[in-house]
Amino acid sequence: MPDQPTFSAINPSTGQSIASYRESTRADVDAAAGVAQAAFTTDLPPFWQTDLLDTVADRIVDLGDPLLEIAEAESALPRPRLTGERARTTSQLKLFAAHVRQGAWLDAVIDTADPSRKPAAKPDLRRMNIPRGPVAVFGASNFPLAFGTIGGDTASAMAAGNPVIVKGHPSHPGTSALVASAVMAALDHLHLPKGLFSLLQGTSHDLSAYLVQHPAITAVGFTGSQRAGRALFDLAAARPRPIPVFAEMGSVNPLIIMPGAIKANGDAIGKGLAGSILLGVGQFCTKPGILLVIGDDRRPLIQSLTAALTSGGTMLNENLRNNFCSNTSSIAQTPGVQTLLAGFSQNHAGITPSLFATEAATFLANPRLHEEAFGPAALMVHCPHPQDAINCLSHIEGSLTGSLHFSPDDDQKMVRQLLVALQSIAGRVIINGFPTGVEVSPAMVHGGPYPATTDPNSTSVGTAAIRRFTRMIAYQDVPDTLLPPALQNANPLHIPRTVNNQTNTGSIGQ
Amino acid sequence: MPDQPTFSAINPSTGQSIASYRESTRADVDAAAGVAQAAFTTDLPPFWQTDLLDTVADRIVDLGDPLLEIAEAESALPRPRLTGERARTTSQLKLFAAHVRQGAWLDAVIDTADPSRKPAAKPDLRRMNIPRGPVAVFGASNFPLAFGTIGGDTASAMAAGNPVIVKGHPSHPGTSALVASAVMAALDHLHLPKGLFSLLQGTSHDLSAYLVQHPAITAVGFTGSQRAGRALFDLAAARPRPIPVFAEMGSVNPLIIMPGAIKANGDAIGKGLAGSILLGVGQFCTKPGILLVIGDDRRPLIQSLTAALTSGGTMLNENLRNNFCSNTSSIAQTPGVQTLLAGFSQNHAGITPSLFATEAATFLANPRLHEEAFGPAALMVHCPHPQDAINCLSHIEGSLTGSLHFSPDDDQKMVRQLLVALQSIAGRVIINGFPTGVEVSPAMVHGGPYPATTDPNSTSVGTAAIRRFTRMIAYQDVPDTLLPPALQNANPLHIPRTVNNQTNTGSIGQ
Repeated sequence: MPDQPTFSAINPSTGQSIASYRESTRADVDAAAGVAQAAFTTDLPPFWQTDLLDTVADRIVDLGDPLLEIAEAESALPRPRLTGERARTTSQLKLFAAHVRQGAWLDAVIDTADPSRKPAAKPDLRRMNIPRGPVAVFGASNFPLAFGTIGGDTASAMAAGNPVIVKGHPSHPGTSALVASAVMAALDHLHLPKGLFSLLQGTSHDLSAYLVQHPAITAVGFTGSQRAGRALFDLAAARPRPIPVFAEMGSVNPLIIMPGAIKANGDAIGKGLAGSILLGVGQFCTKPGILLVIGDDRRPLIQSLTAALTSGGTMLNENLRNNFCSNTSSIAQTPGVQTLLAGFSQNHAGITPSLFATEAATFLANPRLHEEAFGPAALMVHCPHPQDAINCLSHIEGSLTGSLHFSPDDDQKMVRQLLVALQSIAGRVIINGFPTGVEVSPAMVHGGPYPATTDPNSTSVGTAAIRRFTRMIAYQDVPDTLLPPALQNANPLHIPRTVNNQTNTGSIGQ
Repeated sequence: MPDQPTFSAINPSTGQSIASYRESTRADVDAAAGVAQAAFTTDLPPFWQTDLLDTVADRIVDLGDPLLEIAEAESALPRPRLTGERARTTSQLKLFAAHVRQGAWLDAVIDTADPSRKPAAKPDLRRMNIPRGPVAVFGASNFPLAFGTIGGDTASAMAAGNPVIVKGHPSHPGTSALVASAVMAALDHLHLPKGLFSLLQGTSHDLSAYLVQHPAITAVGFTGSQRAGRALFDLAAARPRPIPVFAEMGSVNPLIIMPGAIKANGDAIGKGLAGSILLGVGQFCTKPGILLVIGDDRRPLIQSLTAALTSGGTMLNENLRNNFCSNTSSIAQTPGVQTLLAGFSQNHAGITPSLFATEAATFLANPRLHEEAFGPAALMVHCPHPQDAINCLSHIEGSLTGSLHFSPDDDQKMVRQLLVALQSIAGRVIINGFPTGVEVSPAMVHGGPYPATTDPNSTSVGTAAIRRFTRMIAYQDVPDTLLPPALQNANPLHIPRTVNNQTNTGSIGQ
């Protein structure tokens, strides 16, 4: 098909094309949805997805250096970072497999019958979570592995037992294709239906829109910009049968520093903050973007922070670089904003970090300053009194994280009030630390009020992410042999279940 | 304010006005939202809502016969039914209070720190569910108590710790006002902020739209028609900050009967089915509306069913009666549909039941026959073979329930396939029983795929309904004294928590 549209993978360090990829079409979406639906209705053994998750992890390791090489070429992320990200991706898959086997995510609840109850007999009722059906996942550009084709959204949707159709990020199509080959190899090895996973590639909005509107799709996972996430959310909500879009759209991640903390640790906080701002060339969803600095002795902090904010880097693609430059110049041009470090654009996608400072009053008066500038930039807001920081927080929209640095010398009543204010807008609250470095663990919440996400009752990182991609079902008076294994009397999967209000992993006597 | 709009409560049995009520205004919404927001940010003791739920239950009983009298006058539901519904409402409140105290709904998960972990120290992370904020609830007409002002949606939103603003159903404003007085008395008795509960009354669409779009509202519970539920869902999704609408919009509740079941129990099934269709004059969300009857010997079933479908009744309001009449006459006029029992309209809202029969081919060809006719009507679809029933199910939209009657003599392979087909469209699957009579219990799911509900990962009945009205939050390295009690080391609330993957109710050693 010689006249089919293609797009190029660009090396952001050189601006040169690496390779050309075919744009997926509506027909490709129909085909992927068709095989996904067929795979979903195939009778598979309980917990089939655990072997798949484990095997995919192994197959990704098997890809070896070529995976790291292409990811490096397509993302400009340094090799050690990508090696670490690969380890995070495979350990995430194995953690999810273990979590699925453990079975608590099924939320199995059984109320046994009471035929003698008056005025009416009580039926036998058994509830659990089951997969929703085919899920569409939109990979992120900033974690080509851990939030890409087999990243957190795909892993959690798959862990819940759903077929997944990934729309790979056009910044790294070669990385996506290699990872997809590992998934297909795992499906093949396990004799599982190939329709359980498909990769679509392309740059067109129509492709994404058609996928989200496809009748076979039952839920969407997305990581990316607020504009793109909201567009998909709106399309999904307007469907004849609406479906949820779990979109993680980044945030400003306010970080508050109280005067006692500056006095006690100003230098260390400045260095830690710089490290957090620079991580991945500032391209983390949890990068602290707004620093609310309380009190008047900010010097040690500013000195340490500006001194440490040195290294620039290459952004993931030219589009992000251009946005970063226009966002930072718009901040710099706001009256009342002082430029402490002027980031500048280097060759291609290269940039250096930016740091700005302003007063609480200026911040409150300029909504433009409340928005995220994705990349290595931060705005320090001078808050003479803790109440000024609380006022600033009330103007900041929903955020993935909120951080607070304080020392025992700080006003503990105000510490408490600041914590309450942070809680009200954030999905994760951090004390005397930095928001980057998101643990993949059972207690993690990588979520938060809109626009950090479209659903603050969910997380896109950690094992609690699985539950998003399930739905609830109850069985009433269904004979044991017709029940799914998770709800059968003998408890053949040995999972924890709440039986007549007691939780245990035992069986039910006949 | 003599020129303020009012509306009337109508006695459906007589068509006469009972009393006049003031229409709530946008200013009333603003006021209710303002006090709700203020109440939400008030520092209250842990589990304050349990005393409220218990006390409201007591205060509702204290209202005595006047509550039953006005509910009877406004709904035409018979006194024994309303007495039973009151008991269901108060026991639901007490069940939710006990469930909140037990604490598992908080889903507290703790991963303790590991400072020695390489390459990076592991932080202390603690996750739990917290209330979302003010919730708007739209009460249903068909359960003036159990799904009304202090019904399942209000009780679950309150159990999660949220302030609630109820828009009472205009069919029973007097009932709503009396129940609201009981809630306000409970708040007063417990010295809790009055803003934790408000009742709005009225008939205008603008009032409902303004409430759902109010910036202070964080979630919506709704029970009612598909048209109204979808309209609110669309408004909520289009907000600058979208919020979830948990809408339960009824369904056709397909019920399949296999030939062996007719042979063995045709008479009993017909009688049971008639009881289920007639319950509450057919005005149950779970009324079986489409009966897929497999095989050719249907006579015993039809005889028993038509003989038992005798008693008519008064519908909840004239609007529902008019819809019922137009829906049933549209079914009757569909070519290929036979009318076995012609329901007719009596005085005012009075009607008698309707029963129709058709062939699977006619059913498949007429989308109009796949829709719910709210009231005492059902359509029998003759399916020569089980596969015809599966085909019919594939044309039926998401449903609250799906039921299957079979006997040991029936083809067990087909039983299994029919069960799978029912599962794919229903929130609850029932074997050899009837869908009406929804248990309020931990294992209940009163939900299902769209359009039964807008969120198949939720239920509006049972203790699992509480989780809809929470959001997730994580605390990272937060000192014990600043943590909410549910996550403190000492576990002062004695709730089950998952600490480093082990679930127990103990404390964490220092």
